[in-house]
Amino acid sequence: MPDERPEALTYAAAGVDIDAQDRALVEIKRLAKSTFTPGVLSEIGGFGGLFTLEPENPAGTVLVASADGVGTKLKVAQAAGVHGTVGEDLVNHCVNDILVQGARPLFFLDYLATGHLEPGVAAEVVAGLARGCQGNSCALLGGETAEMPGFYAPGEYDLAGFIVGCCRRDKLLQAGSVRPGDVLVALPSTGLHTNGYSLARKVFFDELALKADSEVPGLGVTVAEALLAVHRSYLPAVGPLVDEGFVRSAAHITGGGIPDNLPRALPAGVGAEIFLDSWDEPPLFRVIREGGRVPEDDMRRTFNLGVGMILAVAPEKEGTVLEKLVPFGPGWVIGLCVAGRGVRFVAERG
Amino acid sequence: MPDERPEALTYAAAGVDIDAQDRALVEIKRLAKSTFTPGVLSEIGGFGGLFTLEPENPAGTVLVASADGVGTKLKVAQAAGVHGTVGEDLVNHCVNDILVQGARPLFFLDYLATGHLEPGVAAEVVAGLARGCQGNSCALLGGETAEMPGFYAPGEYDLAGFIVGCCRRDKLLQAGSVRPGDVLVALPSTGLHTNGYSLARKVFFDELALKADSEVPGLGVTVAEALLAVHRSYLPAVGPLVDEGFVRSAAHITGGGIPDNLPRALPAGVGAEIFLDSWDEPPLFRVIREGGRVPEDDMRRTFNLGVGMILAVAPEKEGTVLEKLVPFGPGWVIGLCVAGRGVRFVAERG
Repeated sequence: MPDERPEALTYAAAGVDIDAQDRALVEIKRLAKSTFTPGVLSEIGGFGGLFTLEPENPAGTVLVASADGVGTKLKVAQAAGVHGTVGEDLVNHCVNDILVQGARPLFFLDYLATGHLEPGVAAEVVAGLARGCQGNSCALLGGETAEMPGFYAPGEYDLAGFIVGCCRRDKLLQAGSVRPGDVLVALPSTGLHTNGYSLARKVFFDELALKADSEVPGLGVTVAEALLAVHRSYLPAVGPLVDEGFVRSAAHITGGGIPDNLPRALPAGVGAEIFLDSWDEPPLFRVIREGGRVPEDDMRRTFNLGVGMILAVAPEKEGTVLEKLVPFGPGWVIGLCVAGRGVRFVAERG
Repeated sequence: MPDERPEALTYAAAGVDIDAQDRALVEIKRLAKSTFTPGVLSEIGGFGGLFTLEPENPAGTVLVASADGVGTKLKVAQAAGVHGTVGEDLVNHCVNDILVQGARPLFFLDYLATGHLEPGVAAEVVAGLARGCQGNSCALLGGETAEMPGFYAPGEYDLAGFIVGCCRRDKLLQAGSVRPGDVLVALPSTGLHTNGYSLARKVFFDELALKADSEVPGLGVTVAEALLAVHRSYLPAVGPLVDEGFVRSAAHITGGGIPDNLPRALPAGVGAEIFLDSWDEPPLFRVIREGGRVPEDDMRRTFNLGVGMILAVAPEKEGTVLEKLVPFGPGWVIGLCVAGRGVRFVAERG
């Protein structure tokens, strides 16, 4: 008897081929490396690129830069006619990417591309960018608004951003400082943030045949409200902990989820155990998992599952860190650093 | 008797509404200004944004940042299957934008967005970015390759870039230093650079019904070769002149042409006379003008007409500047700064 269950949805089936991306990335890294000047302190592949004007100064100022887009969360915003939050998503995403290197934001530039510019929509988008910048004490220093007839469908636009922050070189967060036994402290996400939207859209709009203004079954909010929740900035909560030396390294949980992002904050020879019983996954992820019959491994490699950032902390600092996080919405111990490599999900703390 | 000539092509008719863009820009500037922190030294609208980490130091390091896209030149590249030069276009465009503020490039980040990633195409695009960065001693520090299924048509991608350079604050080029009587020295462009492609594509592909591999009438090159000529970097020619103090201010001639860009390099109370007999417009522009019956004012506000950069130079330095430019392809005196405002095209030097 043939299996009549519809095919499970995976990120690859939704049109995103992570392996092809990885192969291209190898070549891209090689090309980028061929351009490196003495100021470059990083390889491509970190959360942000590092550049210094004082290569000889071990305590000199390092510029930390990152580029990012909003991805297909834009499709949801455009379907819902809500243009005022994607800018904030983008700024917060970029702020988090340099925060996990230890940097505070200095300035941000945007790239907004449309087929035909609706001035009201452009202003709404930029208002979101401005609100995001204000919330992170980051100057919106410039940008490009490109009108490209015939390139984007009517009502559609793409939005990308670029952030530059700074950090004293000897204060950069370094994966190399993490040791087995260090505690992994998680901070809650506010929703999907800006990752997994190609898969989430397939589940909500194709599999479940919902519309942007439909209610998500059992959640009491519309699909648009659930999917457009603003990507959280962790700067207010984590910035002071970084400044006070409580954080060894940090991972922003974006595309690739915990399995792909956490290892970027760990040195060779150190892996992580993640305790599955340590948090209650927000119900939105259950709706996606069940609605799309998404395999667990795809869920974990596509979504943040309620975990937006993970900090590696020395064991003796665990209590203070958890206490200092409380006013911002509590964090929790999600796992431990162990000898080994990669991320292993375990039922509970051993 | 009705006028049976087909309607003339203008930039607005080609789908780009510069006035609507201008209105949105006013609101965008207001929003951006609301985010400014003490490090910001510029208003949006300069060729690049200025930021300093040392607001109190008149000789401190200023970071100069700019964001830009390639625009619909990408459509030509994609139609021709030529992906290796648009990256160089973009880097050189960005380098020029900060060069006219007096800055040398430090690093560049890209944003490459596609519907479905063709790894070979992505690597070709990045190879162009890398070549552009190498040519300008600029590090390709990072970037984002976004795969957004359903967002871009098959085979299409958008490409944007962000550059950061630096300059000593007291060495920034300033419009305020220009005086009536200063000489305007022009440097030749290599083609359309990256502006006016929506109009140029309408002329070549619709009005003249040519294809990417058709020969441009009378030019001995194909449409793709003519339209994909790489945007020139003026850093090798102009960088040393800036360092040696020979340049008062400079304008990168991009969208808006000489009439919109040259005034950005002039202070209040100073206008410019441009001598029409001082250069031979490259024949490509004549083909566009005649092929699309484009009004002269639209030609001037859409295309660079063979002039990629204009330097304002003290009269006593004219000879030295012209001499030093010779090895890079000679420049010429294209006009004079005069009391007044705006740009006036005159037949010849009065």
